[in-house]
Amino acid sequence: MEKKCIGIDIGGTSVKLGLFKISGELLDKWEVPTRKEEGGKHILEDVAASIKSVLKEKNIDLKDVVGAGMGVPGPVMPDGYVEVCVNLGWHNMNPQKELSQMLSGLLVKSGNDANVAALGEMWQGGGKGYTDIVMVTLGTGVGGGVIINEKIIAGRHGLAGEIGHIHVRDEEKEHCNCGGVGCVEQIASATGIAREARRKMAASDVFTEMRKYGDGITAKDVLDEAKSGDCMALEVVEVVGRYLGLMLAQVAMTIDPEIFVIGGGVSKAGQFLIDIVDKYYRHFTPISENKGKIGLAKLGNDAGIYGAARMVLD
Amino acid sequence: MEKKCIGIDIGGTSVKLGLFKISGELLDKWEVPTRKEEGGKHILEDVAASIKSVLKEKNIDLKDVVGAGMGVPGPVMPDGYVEVCVNLGWHNMNPQKELSQMLSGLLVKSGNDANVAALGEMWQGGGKGYTDIVMVTLGTGVGGGVIINEKIIAGRHGLAGEIGHIHVRDEEKEHCNCGGVGCVEQIASATGIAREARRKMAASDVFTEMRKYGDGITAKDVLDEAKSGDCMALEVVEVVGRYLGLMLAQVAMTIDPEIFVIGGGVSKAGQFLIDIVDKYYRHFTPISENKGKIGLAKLGNDAGIYGAARMVLD
Repeated sequence: MEKKCIGIDIGGTSVKLGLFKISGELLDKWEVPTRKEEGGKHILEDVAASIKSVLKEKNIDLKDVVGAGMGVPGPVMPDGYVEVCVNLGWHNMNPQKELSQMLSGLLVKSGNDANVAALGEMWQGGGKGYTDIVMVTLGTGVGGGVIINEKIIAGRHGLAGEIGHIHVRDEEKEHCNCGGVGCVEQIASATGIAREARRKMAASDVFTEMRKYGDGITAKDVLDEAKSGDCMALEVVEVVGRYLGLMLAQVAMTIDPEIFVIGGGVSKAGQFLIDIVDKYYRHFTPISENKGKIGLAKLGNDAGIYGAARMVLD
Repeated sequence: MEKKCIGIDIGGTSVKLGLFKISGELLDKWEVPTRKEEGGKHILEDVAASIKSVLKEKNIDLKDVVGAGMGVPGPVMPDGYVEVCVNLGWHNMNPQKELSQMLSGLLVKSGNDANVAALGEMWQGGGKGYTDIVMVTLGTGVGGGVIINEKIIAGRHGLAGEIGHIHVRDEEKEHCNCGGVGCVEQIASATGIAREARRKMAASDVFTEMRKYGDGITAKDVLDEAKSGDCMALEVVEVVGRYLGLMLAQVAMTIDPEIFVIGGGVSKAGQFLIDIVDKYYRHFTPISENKGKIGLAKLGNDAGIYGAARMVLD
């Protein structure tokens, strides 16, 4: 029987789990609620119980499972130690060690969820077939994950892949959540795109379809109107593409990946957005024609379970 | 007898060679001229002959040499293939394979010289004791090398470490050698620092000691006058430090190294320059106090032979 592996993606509301063939085929996925009470002490118990029950139901022996990987929404040390994970209430614990004990010593590995999702996209998503990828997640914020030689680069202080906090805009005045000013996250996240649109509308009285959404305008509204040819919406998307392309160029000049994989809610705008980002990315990398390309993520919210499962296959 | 390894740093004028104990001690170093005529076909012959002669003179058997590493001034593919190396006249050859044949099948590895120098600084220089370093060389241009887990990150198209061509200044009008506009190399290289000084002097008639150097002012003049307290020279160094610190911050948010090692002629300004760069680096990385530090390179022009020798020890 082909060996299996398990991917666990721990979120603040629910834990996603996936059972995979080691070849990468997803056999089953399911969720359990994240019980955050009492410092999140029940989370791993629930995960272990759920895994045992699913394996039993499917008649899979634990011996046929290579291991379980786990994405954690916060910094994870190389040995699996978690100093603090605000979203889960965890403090000073080693979740991979604890889960392993609950699962009869099964191999358990763990990593930061953004990095783990990047590994998932490399394995079976938009980065499939590549070994060096940078994932860029355009959601409420801008997250990232760096994979080199099929391995997560977590950084020596857990900061690798924090590409949303690369400073790109000198003239910005407002502060980013990180404490900085002018981060790419302030422009290219869903929140940032909506803010750019509000700013542009406030700064002129030119007609734009965007005005019908008022102050509640979303990134999706902006991108939809831009696709429909609204001039001011297009200007907003050009600004977003310019700074995002610049950031990708900066990353390319540092580690030169094979592909940038763009995911997150904003990436649903698809090739339309990629083409604009790519134009600026090329503008800022005249040094060579031969460089990493830009593509779309494919796994959506499943990237985390894919990447977690992939962690135990090295 | 402790095993030895050899480092070769091929430059446009001369080839530097070093004989090392595998523990990292430099036993001897010497140079041979780089014969570039006839498409550089004699360069490797000269290197091989020189190595054989030095080993013979020292009574060292080739069997006691683990291997020889080689830094090449241009892009090198993972298998050692060099498509073109303008400075040497090389085209479509595999220098590491050829040199190995000339040395009775000795293990020979090769890499881009900037990356190899970074490995040297990690082994026995300013990055000694660290496994993840980024070297920044402030010379005529701004070069770089990225080392993660004691390995060179060359990038999938040989562009990794091209951090001098990270775009940092939107208001720049002149073009960089790479074809871009606003690269950090245009501000923080020796050439760039002198240009900044000329620009600042031309833009005002305020007194500055820098005027005595006229248009021939060098980066060293600027840094010396800044150290002596000349106000306009200090302003120039602040601009340099700002953009250099910004670039380091961008790299830190991507791969989060343990230390940035600053080398090259401009780095002779020492801790005075580092302190100014560090101030801006911290300004642009408010996300965490716990991050890579900035230090000075220690090996000078020998970094290349050290790094080359280190390549064959993995």
